[in-house]
Amino acid sequence: MAENTIFFKNKPRIVATGTVAGPKECAGVVGRYVDKALDNDMFGEDTYEKAECKMLSYAITKAMENAGLMKTDVDLLVSGDLLNQIISSSFAARDIAVPYLGVYGACSTMAEALAVAACLVDSGYMRNVIAATGSHFSSAERQYRYPLELGTTRPPQSQWTVTGAGGAVVSDTQTGICIETATFGKVVDFGITDVNNMGAAMAPAAADTILRHLKQTGRSPQYYDLILTGDLGALGSRILKDLTWEKGVDISANHVDCGEIVYNVIEDEFQGGSGAGCSAVVFNSYIYQKMISGGLTRVLFVATGALLSPISSGQGESIPCVAHAVGLERGESL
Amino acid sequence: MAENTIFFKNKPRIVATGTVAGPKECAGVVGRYVDKALDNDMFGEDTYEKAECKMLSYAITKAMENAGLMKTDVDLLVSGDLLNQIISSSFAARDIAVPYLGVYGACSTMAEALAVAACLVDSGYMRNVIAATGSHFSSAERQYRYPLELGTTRPPQSQWTVTGAGGAVVSDTQTGICIETATFGKVVDFGITDVNNMGAAMAPAAADTILRHLKQTGRSPQYYDLILTGDLGALGSRILKDLTWEKGVDISANHVDCGEIVYNVIEDEFQGGSGAGCSAVVFNSYIYQKMISGGLTRVLFVATGALLSPISSGQGESIPCVAHAVGLERGESL
Repeated sequence: MAENTIFFKNKPRIVATGTVAGPKECAGVVGRYVDKALDNDMFGEDTYEKAECKMLSYAITKAMENAGLMKTDVDLLVSGDLLNQIISSSFAARDIAVPYLGVYGACSTMAEALAVAACLVDSGYMRNVIAATGSHFSSAERQYRYPLELGTTRPPQSQWTVTGAGGAVVSDTQTGICIETATFGKVVDFGITDVNNMGAAMAPAAADTILRHLKQTGRSPQYYDLILTGDLGALGSRILKDLTWEKGVDISANHVDCGEIVYNVIEDEFQGGSGAGCSAVVFNSYIYQKMISGGLTRVLFVATGALLSPISSGQGESIPCVAHAVGLERGESL
Repeated sequence: MAENTIFFKNKPRIVATGTVAGPKECAGVVGRYVDKALDNDMFGEDTYEKAECKMLSYAITKAMENAGLMKTDVDLLVSGDLLNQIISSSFAARDIAVPYLGVYGACSTMAEALAVAACLVDSGYMRNVIAATGSHFSSAERQYRYPLELGTTRPPQSQWTVTGAGGAVVSDTQTGICIETATFGKVVDFGITDVNNMGAAMAPAAADTILRHLKQTGRSPQYYDLILTGDLGALGSRILKDLTWEKGVDISANHVDCGEIVYNVIEDEFQGGSGAGCSAVVFNSYIYQKMISGGLTRVLFVATGALLSPISSGQGESIPCVAHAVGLERGESL
């Protein structure tokens, strides 16, 4: 083997999702699809970190409710986030009080958590697993870059961390969106050292995973209605298309990036959205609803993560990145 | 269901381990069992973080070598560590260049990674998965508490983060130490806010997981030759024994804590060892060799993690903790 695209025999299903997003995000396409549109990104809390944790808790609880489940029905929460020691996830897990598997894949966390959840449900170990993640613009900025109070100028290649959270319930039922394949990503590092240029850093990881997934499944890009990357942004998306095209695979006709579509007006946010919450919100609200309504049948969801830390960058390291892919299909029995 | 002790049908096996530890650690019991005993905890690097990453890379590569595997035989690396954004693991994953699943469970990471690896191998998705973690005293101190240069006095309830790393190869073969059960932990928070008192914070999580595991498997503590916790230290171990005893379960006869036994002389390190590397080194060297040689047949390995962050503590939060358990058995065919 040592291939690593997993084909799920029992087709675990996403039976419900829960999403919440901030005001800037809800001015865009996801505004009509999220369960809760915040009019204030503090969400009633007194710190950005607590607001982020509350959003994640909300998304998890809402997904559970939308699936018609009680806490006692949930076997496991698989969650991670961008904050040091993934505190949003760990504190959310404390609140919900179900067994908890903490994961870290930076902005690739939604796909990583979905893949792990699908493995645990497909193999019959568990019946209901929640996969979730989120991020907050203000907590991410002060942790990864500079405190907002400094008023630092943002360079044109930068992206805007999405304030929002999303969760999905993966269950062993016969109705819902099938998770049919998963490809775990390798860490790819093309030597980018600019912490404001995440798109360029992550695009090679996305290309590696997409190409490997297509090769291992024997599929063409056209097999999917949509190849949805996480948060490459406008620049990163263009680099991804170039990199795959160089390998003889043209994904341009059906590739869309969550970061590129999440904001309506490209202004301060330059290249678009980023953050674990970016793909979590776009996938679990807009894309999920499109699949439910039949607008999309087959989607390859490829969330991308930059595995840097201010410490590693400060010690002169480049930015290692990863992308995990999950193949989704609208079952006929939906 | 919503029980969550998994019984592995195909008994995935630990076929080899790789370990490395610092000079202070190697003065103790693990010194005779590790693959590499460092005489300098910088390991030839110029920062603590890079030394930690190098140890983790070493443990992963050594485990692979000891299993007689090439990189191309390895389906996945499951790894995490204590540093922000688990950079030791991500950079180690970049070096080994196999698919990578980042996890975070603080000091519970070794058991968490083993449990995930066992799930992926047992279910037939993968053949060889490496589970690994590590920590470094000096990188942990300056991240979680104070830079060493400040010369801060350590209180008597504190522990000493182990400098070391360990990895295990989990494979679908018929020889080796069986992983026969796994119990994912819930996040438990008894309201401890003293970041120097990890043992007291983590003991309730360990008690919760052990009691749940014993109940769900219908086993008594005596079923196991050893109930091995990760890094509760001397004080935490005593609290764990009290908490389980209060629930009518007496584990005192066969409970040992890795943190309590890792150091020879209790001096600066007070309550003993801690850190993700603590259980990773003790389990993958000393305990693993004891199982291989027949000195131990059944071991319940319960690594414990404190899911705090300096940010959460600074914002007035208490310390949420988790413990994951893995049931191990020396197969007759060994």
